[in-house]
Amino acid sequence: MVSGNGEANSNRSFGLDDLPKISGMATLLNAPYQENLENTDIALIGVPFDGGVVFRPGARFGPAEVRNKSGMIGRMNHQTKIEPFGRCRIRDVGDVSLESIYHLESAVDEIEQYFLRIVSQGVLPVSVGGDHSISYPILKAVGSKEPVGLIHFDAHCDTGDAAYNSKFHHGGPFKNAVEAGVLDPTRTIQIGIRGTAEKNWAFSYASGMQVLHIEDFKKIGIEGTIEQIRRTVGDGPTYLSFDVDCLDPAYAPGTGTPEVGGMTSFEAQQVLRGLGGLSLVGADLVEVAPTYDQSGITALLGANLVFEQACLLAQSF
Amino acid sequence: MVSGNGEANSNRSFGLDDLPKISGMATLLNAPYQENLENTDIALIGVPFDGGVVFRPGARFGPAEVRNKSGMIGRMNHQTKIEPFGRCRIRDVGDVSLESIYHLESAVDEIEQYFLRIVSQGVLPVSVGGDHSISYPILKAVGSKEPVGLIHFDAHCDTGDAAYNSKFHHGGPFKNAVEAGVLDPTRTIQIGIRGTAEKNWAFSYASGMQVLHIEDFKKIGIEGTIEQIRRTVGDGPTYLSFDVDCLDPAYAPGTGTPEVGGMTSFEAQQVLRGLGGLSLVGADLVEVAPTYDQSGITALLGANLVFEQACLLAQSF
Amino acid sequence: MVSGNGEANSNRSFGLDDLPKISGMATLLNAPYQENLENTDIALIGVPFDGGVVFRPGARFGPAEVRNKSGMIGRMNHQTKIEPFGRCRIRDVGDVSLESIYHLESAVDEIEQYFLRIVSQGVLPVSVGGDHSISYPILKAVGSKEPVGLIHFDAHCDTGDAAYNSKFHHGGPFKNAVEAGVLDPTRTIQIGIRGTAEKNWAFSYASGMQVLHIEDFKKIGIEGTIEQIRRTVGDGPTYLSFDVDCLDPAYAPGTGTPEVGGMTSFEAQQVLRGLGGLSLVGADLVEVAPTYDQSGITALLGANLVFEQACLLAQSF
Amino acid sequence: MVSGNGEANSNRSFGLDDLPKISGMATLLNAPYQENLENTDIALIGVPFDGGVVFRPGARFGPAEVRNKSGMIGRMNHQTKIEPFGRCRIRDVGDVSLESIYHLESAVDEIEQYFLRIVSQGVLPVSVGGDHSISYPILKAVGSKEPVGLIHFDAHCDTGDAAYNSKFHHGGPFKNAVEAGVLDPTRTIQIGIRGTAEKNWAFSYASGMQVLHIEDFKKIGIEGTIEQIRRTVGDGPTYLSFDVDCLDPAYAPGTGTPEVGGMTSFEAQQVLRGLGGLSLVGADLVEVAPTYDQSGITALLGANLVFEQACLLAQSF
Amino acid sequence: MVSGNGEANSNRSFGLDDLPKISGMATLLNAPYQENLENTDIALIGVPFDGGVVFRPGARFGPAEVRNKSGMIGRMNHQTKIEPFGRCRIRDVGDVSLESIYHLESAVDEIEQYFLRIVSQGVLPVSVGGDHSISYPILKAVGSKEPVGLIHFDAHCDTGDAAYNSKFHHGGPFKNAVEAGVLDPTRTIQIGIRGTAEKNWAFSYASGMQVLHIEDFKKIGIEGTIEQIRRTVGDGPTYLSFDVDCLDPAYAPGTGTPEVGGMTSFEAQQVLRGLGGLSLVGADLVEVAPTYDQSGITALLGANLVFEQACLLAQSF
Amino acid sequence: MVSGNGEANSNRSFGLDDLPKISGMATLLNAPYQENLENTDIALIGVPFDGGVVFRPGARFGPAEVRNKSGMIGRMNHQTKIEPFGRCRIRDVGDVSLESIYHLESAVDEIEQYFLRIVSQGVLPVSVGGDHSISYPILKAVGSKEPVGLIHFDAHCDTGDAAYNSKFHHGGPFKNAVEAGVLDPTRTIQIGIRGTAEKNWAFSYASGMQVLHIEDFKKIGIEGTIEQIRRTVGDGPTYLSFDVDCLDPAYAPGTGTPEVGGMTSFEAQQVLRGLGGLSLVGADLVEVAPTYDQSGITALLGANLVFEQACLLAQSF
Repeated sequence: MVSGNGEANSNRSFGLDDLPKISGMATLLNAPYQENLENTDIALIGVPFDGGVVFRPGARFGPAEVRNKSGMIGRMNHQTKIEPFGRCRIRDVGDVSLESIYHLESAVDEIEQYFLRIVSQGVLPVSVGGDHSISYPILKAVGSKEPVGLIHFDAHCDTGDAAYNSKFHHGGPFKNAVEAGVLDPTRTIQIGIRGTAEKNWAFSYASGMQVLHIEDFKKIGIEGTIEQIRRTVGDGPTYLSFDVDCLDPAYAPGTGTPEVGGMTSFEAQQVLRGLGGLSLVGADLVEVAPTYDQSGITALLGANLVFEQACLLAQSF
Repeated sequence: MVSGNGEANSNRSFGLDDLPKISGMATLLNAPYQENLENTDIALIGVPFDGGVVFRPGARFGPAEVRNKSGMIGRMNHQTKIEPFGRCRIRDVGDVSLESIYHLESAVDEIEQYFLRIVSQGVLPVSVGGDHSISYPILKAVGSKEPVGLIHFDAHCDTGDAAYNSKFHHGGPFKNAVEAGVLDPTRTIQIGIRGTAEKNWAFSYASGMQVLHIEDFKKIGIEGTIEQIRRTVGDGPTYLSFDVDCLDPAYAPGTGTPEVGGMTSFEAQQVLRGLGGLSLVGADLVEVAPTYDQSGITALLGANLVFEQACLLAQSF
Repeated sequence: MVSGNGEANSNRSFGLDDLPKISGMATLLNAPYQENLENTDIALIGVPFDGGVVFRPGARFGPAEVRNKSGMIGRMNHQTKIEPFGRCRIRDVGDVSLESIYHLESAVDEIEQYFLRIVSQGVLPVSVGGDHSISYPILKAVGSKEPVGLIHFDAHCDTGDAAYNSKFHHGGPFKNAVEAGVLDPTRTIQIGIRGTAEKNWAFSYASGMQVLHIEDFKKIGIEGTIEQIRRTVGDGPTYLSFDVDCLDPAYAPGTGTPEVGGMTSFEAQQVLRGLGGLSLVGADLVEVAPTYDQSGITALLGANLVFEQACLLAQSF
Repeated sequence: MVSGNGEANSNRSFGLDDLPKISGMATLLNAPYQENLENTDIALIGVPFDGGVVFRPGARFGPAEVRNKSGMIGRMNHQTKIEPFGRCRIRDVGDVSLESIYHLESAVDEIEQYFLRIVSQGVLPVSVGGDHSISYPILKAVGSKEPVGLIHFDAHCDTGDAAYNSKFHHGGPFKNAVEAGVLDPTRTIQIGIRGTAEKNWAFSYASGMQVLHIEDFKKIGIEGTIEQIRRTVGDGPTYLSFDVDCLDPAYAPGTGTPEVGGMTSFEAQQVLRGLGGLSLVGADLVEVAPTYDQSGITALLGANLVFEQACLLAQSF
Repeated sequence: MVSGNGEANSNRSFGLDDLPKISGMATLLNAPYQENLENTDIALIGVPFDGGVVFRPGARFGPAEVRNKSGMIGRMNHQTKIEPFGRCRIRDVGDVSLESIYHLESAVDEIEQYFLRIVSQGVLPVSVGGDHSISYPILKAVGSKEPVGLIHFDAHCDTGDAAYNSKFHHGGPFKNAVEAGVLDPTRTIQIGIRGTAEKNWAFSYASGMQVLHIEDFKKIGIEGTIEQIRRTVGDGPTYLSFDVDCLDPAYAPGTGTPEVGGMTSFEAQQVLRGLGGLSLVGADLVEVAPTYDQSGITALLGANLVFEQACLLAQSF
Repeated sequence: MVSGNGEANSNRSFGLDDLPKISGMATLLNAPYQENLENTDIALIGVPFDGGVVFRPGARFGPAEVRNKSGMIGRMNHQTKIEPFGRCRIRDVGDVSLESIYHLESAVDEIEQYFLRIVSQGVLPVSVGGDHSISYPILKAVGSKEPVGLIHFDAHCDTGDAAYNSKFHHGGPFKNAVEAGVLDPTRTIQIGIRGTAEKNWAFSYASGMQVLHIEDFKKIGIEGTIEQIRRTVGDGPTYLSFDVDCLDPAYAPGTGTPEVGGMTSFEAQQVLRGLGGLSLVGADLVEVAPTYDQSGITALLGANLVFEQACLLAQSF
């Protein structure tokens, strides 16, 4: 097992309690790295696939860069005081390694198989994409027994129809998931929605999803949003999907389809920190595209958002 | 006529209603491109001139890059539900091609002649600069019959005196316009003003313009600002000029004279969306300088602001 | 028809004979743009597809960026004195617009159909990729009547087996073409080959292609290389394929699989300029990936290499 | 004496009152440059030292780049109307030039000696780092007669224990200063604190410092923060230390340990502008690391924050 | 006088003989900075003007960035063993500060006046541009008594006709200089010429200049080129003008009109080092445009080429 | 053991023999990763330390980025046909993790201890720096039994005196090593030397090292250089140290002290490939500084040079 600093506190000998990591292999959240699921409560998983993008590719390198920036992540959430590594066994179990990357359907199938294996062992997955097309097969796994609810941060509803002769692209995972019976639209809320492609999202409204546009979010505020999320998803099993383009391009330039007029990183953190106690069955952070992230702030943000997700999931342990 | 996806909806055959454009010539807002004014209500015009800058040049490449980023723009404003291409005939009519770029006065004259031709045919111009010096000759055209009012977003008042032996630089267009009798200072409001060059803007105060500093804007808020704009410009013919440095450098790094402490993109969009129903006679978006825009977010922002301007102007059709 | 400066010499009124282009729509080599094949001898075609890459995507934006940098291209080859636009009718006919981008086989089929249409009208295609997978369907079109010879500049032989369950990826087009009977391996020469993936290229040797490794190229020099190319391809119909990663990453950083130890831009130009008089049936320039091209020199190089290709093809008119 | 435009108003002959500077040597705030302390009330000082960083180095080039961006700074604070150069004699006195850069303790000693010389002549120092380790020796100088209070903007408390066998790294200056008896923790307030290294800052709480986390700051707002600062530091001598990572990475990507979820530049300016009338004995702006600042907005922000500091200190003249 | 390390060897106390400079004001070649011509044999001069460019502006920031990179320059040419600062008094005398930047003719006049003053005091000027339009007024100064010869490194002959209604742009200085009677075309040699704008340079041939295209240079080699230069310029007073785009974009990406297929930095240095003993009356290094120089290697190259020029000029002392 | 693709050929199931790696943890040369020395013939070691730099820091991130770029490295040297992973057991054993980074002497001691452990187990070390100061403690380890010879590629001799009160900086490791009795200067050759700091290298000449300046290298060529290297180091134990700044900044911009006029990547590879059969006891590749490597070509070059070193060392198995 390759040691990260998450568990073993291996930096303590250097003095300062929490140090940025300047040597050793980069792992997600500095978690111990292992290529199996032994002794694992939460699995951090890279999904380096961007075969579902419509516009700018590159999110396949998201997992690698979020790992690189994880060296700047410590161990305690200063606001909620949660220490995820103190609560449960978190491991970076590596990347999904696909055999077919040139056929979107095949890739989607492979991802589903991978996550069915995770879920079947009672491990909670926190995934780093890759583009948003990966959320559909993950939902097929985490919703395989009963449809799950969804908390979805994004600039786009991603409930679009087929495009370019495929319905599995990154603009449609949540329509696919509802149609596959693994996602409950009435327990789904989409936050931060905006932009000029609104016509693509008719399915969200038709299926009964809650769509919280960015101007609605700004109006009801962080507290109001937290309440509306809780009201929507209730106590049932719920998945959390965070597309980094929910944030304004100023905060997240490194993504495939940035949309101006978005959330700040502070707002995103505050909403996430208000979601403790829900029955989360997994989470993902998608669409970090390092080639558009010259200053590296998007991957750093991604690492922080994965940390928030780990804090939330760790609360059930 | 080179087809964009604005009018002919040529992407529909690919499935998803609104798709980012990954092939074909880039045009402003994906509008059909033509080199004349036939069948045109609103003309989108590039003005690739930055011969009036005092500091960092490069805005001459603004039109090209805003065209490139237009591929990410769809067709409907999600908040106001306006679809500009459904309301009127919008065309990208190309760039103003100057014969003299080494003499600021000559360039200004040429730009004026170009826009007089546009205006004389009853076409509404939406221009993409270029530096802010282009607004003076455009105002001479749109205000040639009667002085117009002005809604001006900027970090700087741009009502300065002559500099380096010329008064036509990008720090002075609105003083020039008042002195030329084409701009009514009492119907002019300048929004987002800030920084350390305040002494340059004495003319704004002396002539009776409304100067809304950024701290005033933050205090009265979006609604208050919309009201004050409406009160200032009233029902008369009004021009809208948007310097991208009105936004904070975090949101718009790619510009010649960035000024910290500015507006967010969300705020800019909200104010613009509140301006429906005014008698707008034209608009411009200036000072996008791609060479300072490593992550491309400024040009993307520019394309979105041009879209907002098109929505506003389309409401009169 | 959108005028470029290639034919109509529209810049002459500005004075200097050959000016960089600072206004107007960007077209390949500043050629006139039209969306049909009328009055066309040589068609410049963008193929914005990178669905065949194994590693770093992004070449889908190659055509757009080579167009942008074409503004810096003039009209006469200073060394050979060839003026391609004076010899024949060259048009930028836009991009291949694919209906299927998520299935490599379907995309390959669509590209083949597009080029069959070009070839059937007797037009010579010069294509800008896109990744190297596009060369296979193009060869199927240009070799549809008889197998063609090939002059292939690259760091990699691209004669590999299937990978990730598809044989149509960008590492295999020339094996595919031989197997499809459209490429004559005995009239094929591959120049600049190097790197650590040599084991992938067994088919080149087995099928009888000439492989000129970079160290061989340096040893026999420019003149020797020109001779060997001429000897290999002879008088028959021959296709020219140029992967920009043939050049060293210092000269072409903006590409998906850069390989150190490559050719200089001077060397590439010199070899190309020595190939006049061959029976060229088409050419392509592939693998310009602008997202890795911070300084823009790769796209500029690409535009210059397309100019060299246009010079070569124009010699038959 | 090398003339800047700060004092001599040397730009007036060019026309516009306040012009960005496009020629001449770059100096901090365009102040006159001199290598001694004659006729100096406020000394602007570069401290190009980053030997105390734990993670990403590069702040040693902060002074040079803040000088470069100073060309964009004018002379009047538009909101407070303060003109620092009109109130007192401000000079750029150059950089601290260290003899030992490979031993943190030695460097710290040299910096202390430098600033003792400044302070002994009654000059107020405004320093540009360099990493935050420089604040400890500066505090030893400005607090040499009596312990000072501290207004500290930062994402991190920087009151950590020794690390890597030294306690003088950039994560510990304020613990060092308290232990050295030059900083009064009960008159210390730390603003903007956040992140995942909270465990490192136990000394802040134990020693009685006020820690205003970012969420507290957002809750009590700008006015509330100003009040709390005034209440904490009172009338006694007070030092102002501003780590640029107090701001969100969107606003300040160019720094060694960026922390998401931070302040905006507007908020920072507003708080600083509310601090007039305190007994400030010096100030610093640290952790601008230009190599991570592709768009240059962090150094520009740094120059603006130094201007705010100069405005505050100039009020006592 | 601001001390650099050129003369006073101020770094010696730090130990190593020649150290890169990490503190203090940046000056050209680390020369002492002074704003007059006292005790000066060679004046290093910034000319931050790019009002003559046809395409991409930004060279106005060339002097500042070449100063920044001068910190990496030591004192001895390792090959020729020349130590320029040991032979004569070299000063950075700052920048030409123009009163008119919006009228190319006026700027050209001002530059000429500035250099007449330099020349009249017997000081040899080494200038850093700025675009190539500055060479014409400099030549008017250095050739004011008798026409000078010229050694000109460039991708372009820069002997073009008027463009955009002015003949003083950066594509024409050497035609202007011949016509003004200050440049002897028969003692002029242009080295490295290439590209697609050959038609613009008819004047070079008509007037009798030697044009050494890049392929000619590669053929006759470094020794042959040195001989041809010496043969052409002979013993008479000669000016040296170096446009950084003479080098391939791989070596000099940061320039306005890069041209592929150019010289290497090694070749440029070798030719320059072979030119000792000529009667040089001045030199310039132009067209470094930092905004296109992401990795900073062009400005570093520029600083090194200025060093070579200083070595050559210092040999006459 | 984390599997790389070096040994286990884990990619074969994907089809193509040698594929770039798009998933999984990045390791040096894709070697298996383990944190001990079991079953190891050659250990690939990261030394993330840049505390010895005089100018631009950042090489501490060299190992991480060379790992990232290793994904593009295959398994066979196309020219020599060597397959290092087929000859011996090569492992990435992780990074040297230092306890003291703020005292150059302490860090040097720790590095020595680390490498003594490697050497004592008969493992050959191939190290990735970090700055060049690490070569001294490595030489103390590999030369602990008898002084070794040295093949040293660099722009600088790095035999300088103390600076800033320490002699262990990155400009002096080879003087230190001679003085410590672990390096035999008469069996030392330094290749590619150039620049303006020649005065610093007197020790090289005085101690009898062979200094092959870049102009000498170009004159005697690749074959002549190989011969001279072989003649100098003979049959005795020899260390190979490669500073990436030996190459021209065009090929290696991402380094701390780039020096123009250097080697090409092709030349470097050719010389290295000619060194088979020597008695190499270890090698290093230093001074890759990713923060200055915007296009990533330097780290890619670094990975390729490490591959060449692995090929050379593997020949003894």
